[in-house]
Amino acid sequence: MRFRLDISYDGTDFSGWGVQPQLRTVQGEIENALCTILRLKEPSRLTVAGRTDTGVHARGQVAHVDLADDIDASYLCRRLRNLLSKDIQIRDVQPAAEGFDARFSALERHYIYRICDEPVGPDPLSRGFVLHHFRRLDVTAMNYASQHLLGQHNFAAFCRPRVGATTIRTLLNLSSVRRDDGIIETTVVADAFCHTMVRSLMGVIMVIGAAKYEPRWAASVLEAQIRRPDLEVMPAHGLTLESVLYPPDAELAARAQVSRTVRTI
Amino acid sequence: MRFRLDISYDGTDFSGWGVQPQLRTVQGEIENALCTILRLKEPSRLTVAGRTDTGVHARGQVAHVDLADDIDASYLCRRLRNLLSKDIQIRDVQPAAEGFDARFSALERHYIYRICDEPVGPDPLSRGFVLHHFRRLDVTAMNYASQHLLGQHNFAAFCRPRVGATTIRTLLNLSSVRRDDGIIETTVVADAFCHTMVRSLMGVIMVIGAAKYEPRWAASVLEAQIRRPDLEVMPAHGLTLESVLYPPDAELAARAQVSRTVRTI
Repeated sequence: MRFRLDISYDGTDFSGWGVQPQLRTVQGEIENALCTILRLKEPSRLTVAGRTDTGVHARGQVAHVDLADDIDASYLCRRLRNLLSKDIQIRDVQPAAEGFDARFSALERHYIYRICDEPVGPDPLSRGFVLHHFRRLDVTAMNYASQHLLGQHNFAAFCRPRVGATTIRTLLNLSSVRRDDGIIETTVVADAFCHTMVRSLMGVIMVIGAAKYEPRWAASVLEAQIRRPDLEVMPAHGLTLESVLYPPDAELAARAQVSRTVRTI
Repeated sequence: MRFRLDISYDGTDFSGWGVQPQLRTVQGEIENALCTILRLKEPSRLTVAGRTDTGVHARGQVAHVDLADDIDASYLCRRLRNLLSKDIQIRDVQPAAEGFDARFSALERHYIYRICDEPVGPDPLSRGFVLHHFRRLDVTAMNYASQHLLGQHNFAAFCRPRVGATTIRTLLNLSSVRRDDGIIETTVVADAFCHTMVRSLMGVIMVIGAAKYEPRWAASVLEAQIRRPDLEVMPAHGLTLESVLYPPDAELAARAQVSRTVRTI
């Protein structure tokens, strides 16, 4: 039986989501807890919507796991909450709808990158999830730059390449606003992201926000389809996976089918 | 020469503001850093607007310190920022205006208490400064209760008594709103606060918000002028000193004169 887990975490003290030997990871912590609760000999592997890197946070992460049929979801949720440390929060555990796959059924991943560009930096309560940027940023220029990146493209220039995997993605939203308290929030939404793609996109629009290049420069980076050695991958701690969007239950399986097909333009 | 320091801190790992032997306090950390920077043999004592308790946070704390005339404020600010740990942030150091006293010149102290009353609790990024309350709260009832407490009163029922000190204060604002994300923010403003007063006020309005008593009960607690043994002092980590209000420079000395006079009704 498949269960859907809704999860938040403070990524500060994790080596990212994915299990790695000897390192503290979110997936590792949850799988270990499941082993303890269900007395499993082998961990049941979690499948996740967004494999966040070391230091990236999540409010609305979603994962699934296949377990024995006789397990009560609310019991599992309660036990996981009691067992896990405070930097992981199990928001909910539910039996998954027919055809649900946390990774392949997802329609959109929503991230927010948070930046304080005032000299004094973010206040100590937000310092764990807001980047301190030492140069003042022009949010309007950042948004002009974003216009050149939206839509379906080959984002090879923004990704670490992986053999056999496409870097074609559809960037649905990339927009920055300055909040009343001065913090800049950049919302980044796509059907899916390649490795380091969000933080590389931030690197491009922030360099333009700092007036080093014109907004049009973003288009030339994209069109080159080659990873530039001088392109900055912005620090992880400013980034939070805010939510994952799924279609209505009836369309979950069909969506997973589409996602599994390699994208082509 | 008097300097004004604007300070933020994450109160989690401090035993409050005020210096205590063997304990890590905000005042102690800053005074030690001043000793190092200025090679003082004896610490120069800081005077503060709000002596926060263990675990209480501050975004807009204000303090003053008297130092030698030849010290450059921006040099001091830079050195303090480099020397202090990340959970204290020196927002600014400025030569104080004539007649300025961080404690006695203040007109108002503004606090916010943050509460998550959903079963799942605040997300891990906010858990350090948002209280998790296990009973659902009625914000309207909390605001009705607040109406009975506003104005100038003897707040003895909400304070730890201190010999020779009055407990007469003017409560200028006590209002709660539920934000879009479900977090309740209660703003608490007074000319000044007695020890544990903010968290005791929260204890009363939260008990009313949880429908244990009618809003009118707040009036009877206030009128009794005796500290009830069953009155809860809410946990410190939900509380943040957001700002301190001072009058225009020309009125600083006069205001300090008024504050030094013991309040009477």
